[in-house]
Amino acid sequence: MLPLESVPNVSEGRDGEVIAALAGAFATSARLLDVHSDVDHNRSVFTLVAGGGDDDALVGSLLGGIAAARDAIDLGRHEGVHPRIGAADVVPLVPIRATDMERACAAARALGARVGVELGLPVFLYGEVGGGRRPAFFRRGGPGELQRRVDAGELHPDYGPPRLDARAGAVLVGARKPLVAFNVVLDTEDVEIARGVAAAVRESSGGLPGVQAIGIALPSQGRVQVSMNLIDLDRAALHEVLERVSTEAAARGVGCQDTELVGLLPAAAVLAAAAEPLYLPRLDSSRVLELNLLP
Amino acid sequence: MLPLESVPNVSEGRDGEVIAALAGAFATSARLLDVHSDVDHNRSVFTLVAGGGDDDALVGSLLGGIAAARDAIDLGRHEGVHPRIGAADVVPLVPIRATDMERACAAARALGARVGVELGLPVFLYGEVGGGRRPAFFRRGGPGELQRRVDAGELHPDYGPPRLDARAGAVLVGARKPLVAFNVVLDTEDVEIARGVAAAVRESSGGLPGVQAIGIALPSQGRVQVSMNLIDLDRAALHEVLERVSTEAAARGVGCQDTELVGLLPAAAVLAAAAEPLYLPRLDSSRVLELNLLP
Repeated sequence: MLPLESVPNVSEGRDGEVIAALAGAFATSARLLDVHSDVDHNRSVFTLVAGGGDDDALVGSLLGGIAAARDAIDLGRHEGVHPRIGAADVVPLVPIRATDMERACAAARALGARVGVELGLPVFLYGEVGGGRRPAFFRRGGPGELQRRVDAGELHPDYGPPRLDARAGAVLVGARKPLVAFNVVLDTEDVEIARGVAAAVRESSGGLPGVQAIGIALPSQGRVQVSMNLIDLDRAALHEVLERVSTEAAARGVGCQDTELVGLLPAAAVLAAAAEPLYLPRLDSSRVLELNLLP
Repeated sequence: MLPLESVPNVSEGRDGEVIAALAGAFATSARLLDVHSDVDHNRSVFTLVAGGGDDDALVGSLLGGIAAARDAIDLGRHEGVHPRIGAADVVPLVPIRATDMERACAAARALGARVGVELGLPVFLYGEVGGGRRPAFFRRGGPGELQRRVDAGELHPDYGPPRLDARAGAVLVGARKPLVAFNVVLDTEDVEIARGVAAAVRESSGGLPGVQAIGIALPSQGRVQVSMNLIDLDRAALHEVLERVSTEAAARGVGCQDTELVGLLPAAAVLAAAAEPLYLPRLDSSRVLELNLLP
């Protein structure tokens, strides 16, 4: 049995001490596989799995990390280019095997209930456990707009009080399939070019299936970035999306300067990219020695 | 701890009943991950790992498979395009993690000793456990030439009698790093073209490091094949070798019609091929979720 994965996104990407303390809190009874912090996004992404495949231990470890984020981060003083509504902004539970989605949903519900009761924060469920709603549905307009929608009766938290915490906001807890978070830095300072490329590749404006993309400025680098989530890797593979980004950027006269993987890659994304250079069109995980040795 | 792998190569690729019986014998106390049989080579390759990481159980299972091959295959009546000196021709023990090479060597010695004593077959050690000697060193000239070299005192089996079995020959037992066995079928009947491509890519004639290659006819298909082992994937990656094969074939006016992976791929070969299409030049196993979950 493979453990569940969780990839909490926290609204702090600048203060190394705070980030290290949060990493420690999230990893109390889980294995920390990766930490990705970004000063412009002012956001950190932790990749965790339960040590022994114990879902309850993972939920407990996540609860401790969310509590640490609530105590350390004041959203009222937060600046960053990435949208957010909470100190611990988004906490997805991810089945590594597709057949474990119900386990992920159960863990998400257990975590949401504990965050509501024990930490006193409003929790909104998203993804497979939240009627298919996506984080962007809750984040648009920021914490103030989310509170307005709650007050107007348009939304109600699934757990916890109907009032966002003044410092820590709310928490989006979800269950979703593995995704790839990938950023491409473009060799220009013109954020309109990044926005144009993002619009060309994202599904919502007629681009590639399962691609969410925004174009943002990176003040720390004097460059711009296309920041993407690929949420349906079966329909648009990472290497295909990157080829399209490169083409769209070139059509606007700019090159791709650098890339950045946020968190880890599902093996399926690697296999899809390797099939053509290996002349093995039907390459799948059964053909890779190590992938036969998973627990 | 990861289990050791073993990839016995047996001189029977035509009789489905015999192949199935051999697969069963090899898998008595090991997990069978793949069977690859080839009618032209008249050879089958079994990919095995110990079920619970128990090296002794793997050795015992291999011994049973070698005994079954000895009993079922008469090398005196064998025809096939692949060189061989035994019914159970080559039996490598392979560490999946490089740090397990000493374990693989110990298992190879234990297997060799048991084949010599219990099955009465001469065993020659090769690879890391055999002073770096390769199977081709023993196979050139076939069983008759091997016997002549033993009789002349040029060689002596590491275990077992100094006389090849009239039906089952000898067994090459080795320890080696993971390799890739890969065949490319060319769109021509001219075996000289396959030989020319093989000579251009193999290390021994000035090609790519760690590449062993032969060009052979495939009577059953009316085509020819470049049959390769890549034994040093750090120095020449599979996708690079395939690009070279394709270029060399094109220079001779023929295309690559089909490809064939024999056995399984090490994850490193997949990662190396995916790095460029994923725009991640430093991609390694630490960036792949599932590869962090191996035991």
